[in-house]
Amino acid sequence: MAGSELVTNAAGRLVPIEVNGAGQVPFAGVGGHRPSGRKVGPKIATCLDYPPDGDKRAASLEEALKRVGAEDGMVVSTHHHLRNGDAVANMVFDTAARMGLRDLMWFPSASFPVHANQIQHLESGVIHHIEGSMNGPLGDYCTAGKMRGMGVLRSHGGRWQAIQDGEVHIDVAVIAAPTADPFGNANALNGPAACGLLGFALADSIYAEKVIVVTDNLVPFPCLPWQIQGNNVDVVVEVPSIGDPSKIVSGTTRVTQSPDRLRIAELAARFCAETGIMHDGFSFQAGAGGTTLAFAIYLRDLMKDAGVTASFARGGSTKYMVDMLREGLIGAILDGQTFDLDGVTSMREDPRHVDTSPFTSYNFHGKGNFASMVDVAVLGATQVDVDFNGNVVTHSDGRLLHGIGGWQNCLAAKTTMLLVPSFRDRIPVIVDEVTTLCGPGELIDVVVTERGIAVNPRRTDLLDAVRGSDLPIRDIHDLKADLDRICGIPETPPRTSDPVAIVKWVDGTVLDTVWRIE
Amino acid sequence: MAGSELVTNAAGRLVPIEVNGAGQVPFAGVGGHRPSGRKVGPKIATCLDYPPDGDKRAASLEEALKRVGAEDGMVVSTHHHLRNGDAVANMVFDTAARMGLRDLMWFPSASFPVHANQIQHLESGVIHHIEGSMNGPLGDYCTAGKMRGMGVLRSHGGRWQAIQDGEVHIDVAVIAAPTADPFGNANALNGPAACGLLGFALADSIYAEKVIVVTDNLVPFPCLPWQIQGNNVDVVVEVPSIGDPSKIVSGTTRVTQSPDRLRIAELAARFCAETGIMHDGFSFQAGAGGTTLAFAIYLRDLMKDAGVTASFARGGSTKYMVDMLREGLIGAILDGQTFDLDGVTSMREDPRHVDTSPFTSYNFHGKGNFASMVDVAVLGATQVDVDFNGNVVTHSDGRLLHGIGGWQNCLAAKTTMLLVPSFRDRIPVIVDEVTTLCGPGELIDVVVTERGIAVNPRRTDLLDAVRGSDLPIRDIHDLKADLDRICGIPETPPRTSDPVAIVKWVDGTVLDTVWRIE
Repeated sequence: MAGSELVTNAAGRLVPIEVNGAGQVPFAGVGGHRPSGRKVGPKIATCLDYPPDGDKRAASLEEALKRVGAEDGMVVSTHHHLRNGDAVANMVFDTAARMGLRDLMWFPSASFPVHANQIQHLESGVIHHIEGSMNGPLGDYCTAGKMRGMGVLRSHGGRWQAIQDGEVHIDVAVIAAPTADPFGNANALNGPAACGLLGFALADSIYAEKVIVVTDNLVPFPCLPWQIQGNNVDVVVEVPSIGDPSKIVSGTTRVTQSPDRLRIAELAARFCAETGIMHDGFSFQAGAGGTTLAFAIYLRDLMKDAGVTASFARGGSTKYMVDMLREGLIGAILDGQTFDLDGVTSMREDPRHVDTSPFTSYNFHGKGNFASMVDVAVLGATQVDVDFNGNVVTHSDGRLLHGIGGWQNCLAAKTTMLLVPSFRDRIPVIVDEVTTLCGPGELIDVVVTERGIAVNPRRTDLLDAVRGSDLPIRDIHDLKADLDRICGIPETPPRTSDPVAIVKWVDGTVLDTVWRIE
Repeated sequence: MAGSELVTNAAGRLVPIEVNGAGQVPFAGVGGHRPSGRKVGPKIATCLDYPPDGDKRAASLEEALKRVGAEDGMVVSTHHHLRNGDAVANMVFDTAARMGLRDLMWFPSASFPVHANQIQHLESGVIHHIEGSMNGPLGDYCTAGKMRGMGVLRSHGGRWQAIQDGEVHIDVAVIAAPTADPFGNANALNGPAACGLLGFALADSIYAEKVIVVTDNLVPFPCLPWQIQGNNVDVVVEVPSIGDPSKIVSGTTRVTQSPDRLRIAELAARFCAETGIMHDGFSFQAGAGGTTLAFAIYLRDLMKDAGVTASFARGGSTKYMVDMLREGLIGAILDGQTFDLDGVTSMREDPRHVDTSPFTSYNFHGKGNFASMVDVAVLGATQVDVDFNGNVVTHSDGRLLHGIGGWQNCLAAKTTMLLVPSFRDRIPVIVDEVTTLCGPGELIDVVVTERGIAVNPRRTDLLDAVRGSDLPIRDIHDLKADLDRICGIPETPPRTSDPVAIVKWVDGTVLDTVWRIE
């Protein structure tokens, strides 16, 4: 990590102008950067190189990697729909290690604690570095400055943008597929590792030079529906298991039991109702975290009381969202991830429960996307500052422990609400300046804590709407002062001047830097 | 049409090396050409240029064309799922004429007699030339040498290949959509002009620089399913009607009543049964022509008698194929066109009835496609010669009257059968040499006429399989001699040495030339 020159970007953050050998564009403000050039494509293939009977099976992952010409230094991608139950990414790098491959770049759509397995391959030189979110141990490893290259954190939409725009060229995509046929058509609706959909792997399947599908549930052609199209696939491999079902989707979804978090969820739902955000035909996005789940449940009750239905909801889906679809409270679920078995079943059986991809939902370098059409997005954060800037990747001690997910993309919603507890481990969540900037404050409209709701002063319309309401509307500075009185202002953690990762904005520019910690 | 240099290609046909200003690769034999380069992409878009609320409507087609920057000389594409009921292609060029646009290249996926409307625009200079099949009047116009540029005839798969490979760069795609939302998501399953699917427009939506969706059935977002993705669409236009439903799909499908053609169909079905082509788990493709429909009905009875089911059938779909799906005789219909209302309804309601596109089915520059996985494809032809070469675009008088459709692509099936009457208008269909070469004889396995079945001598396996059968197996030369005895050998029609159109092979090379006739 020879020190690249650093510049101050439009958000006032110091960012490198070169990362892993590639020139970077510093963040130019929201809407400040226009792309140029054309979308890229893989090499033109020919049917001459594929079996006429459509049987693309290889006997093993090693044979598959050989068949696609895996070489030192290549970019290898995986997806994270199997979450912490994924066995395939580890299998790929264990196999690469056995084959003697070196200096690979791993480009996951996200990594999880189960992927701590890759630390040995980073240490031994099989993997050069990781571009993609690093939840838990790999993030720790990165922030300790142990990775040879720099981490590049992108949102789900930003990952599509980077692939489509040619910023990242995937040599080999390995797609874990809960069901597939020998031609490579695949879906995630059936099989022991059913996880609903494969949207995070869609860009990989379209733009990667070579595509390997790995499945533990091979079915005869045609595998229907084909969420991944065999026409983009080079090789199919059968393995005994692609992952641990119990860690892929939960049997049941858990709503928070914390009184504080239930209060946050209730306040957020009431805010939506009292401001008129919740109106007939509105739309919302709520994740699968304990608090946002509780939000959805409160919202459902308020919708029923008011006789209001939503035109669509954006998933991650859970039993609660599926119930709302079945009850007619939601017209359609446009879903990016299914978090429990009810979500998987509903997606398989109900045509109103639609699988989406970052292309439809989040890609900023598209002809519009769904994110900006959503009336309200309800999100979390590790920190938010008095200018409403948000952080989702680092903790206050500077450790990189989370990915961005779709968080940045969701900020395009008409109203964005952060539902956060005031404190975590006695450390205030509202701060003077976020440790790492992930979302510019001008896009974050409302911060809801158990101690009150702060509305971004830019949103005079919302402030007008709640005037006279008995909701606990607070100035964000007052809220912060409360917290500081209780906890004291924590010491600023020590940090070095060595960049270890960057945070990209949705348009591919560099929004902030993550620094090595001692 | 200044005379380009002509060369003799690997099929012995004289072809131009330059067409409409673009260099051409002569046909190099089946499997003889390998592509190079990368798939192309349109300019990278940005959400900055699209309304955040997703409403992309323009008040009129003229406004839409202005908004996408339509200019003289551009390539404008349309699709043909509305067949002879289409109103949109005519609307586009009538509007272009009113706007004073000139020298456009029209790139339809096919044109029909209704599009004779465009002759005025060819005459006036609004349209420079057409690349795409020209059924009927436009073909006549072309063969008379009246078009300023040369016609380029491609198969459905070849059209995808040409777009994907960058041989044709679509500036503006106009997509007639039976149902659409303001964001541009569209399908053909609902609305007054429902035609089932929009697969022929899919490449246009992905690769065109700008995409306009024209609909007469606007629904609120999200239009489900989205056969065309709004994320690829620039502008949406509402019009009173996109076409005449009675000419788009037929209310009922008509099977041939001709005793000769019924005999051809029956012989073909029996051939499949007796050779074992019809085995449990086999697959077939049969079109919507009267003879191939009758074939499907005979085949159904033979399948029932033998207790055999097909794993899948490739459409064009009709009531007969849908009935077979419902009866469990077919596992799935992989459909490229719905020809009647039963087909549309089945595609809307039965998840085993899947819409496909030339990408999945036919694109030769892909990682395999469905066509080569089909056990038997049953097709027609205008002529077939004693070397089993086939013609589907011209008549024996040299007039260009038909498109290629998926015909060339289907030749990749394990067995290809041409079902043809011995004569049409007292002119023999079996000839010494086809007027225009559309399909090399090495890919055509069986010719079935009412006077007997000729098997390509290359297919010794099929000849072995029918040895001792009471099917009327004939040498193709003997068959031809019979016909010549009855009709006499017709005079070779006069033809000039002025090329007016070329026939592309599935790999983008030039297979043959269509010559001006006097």
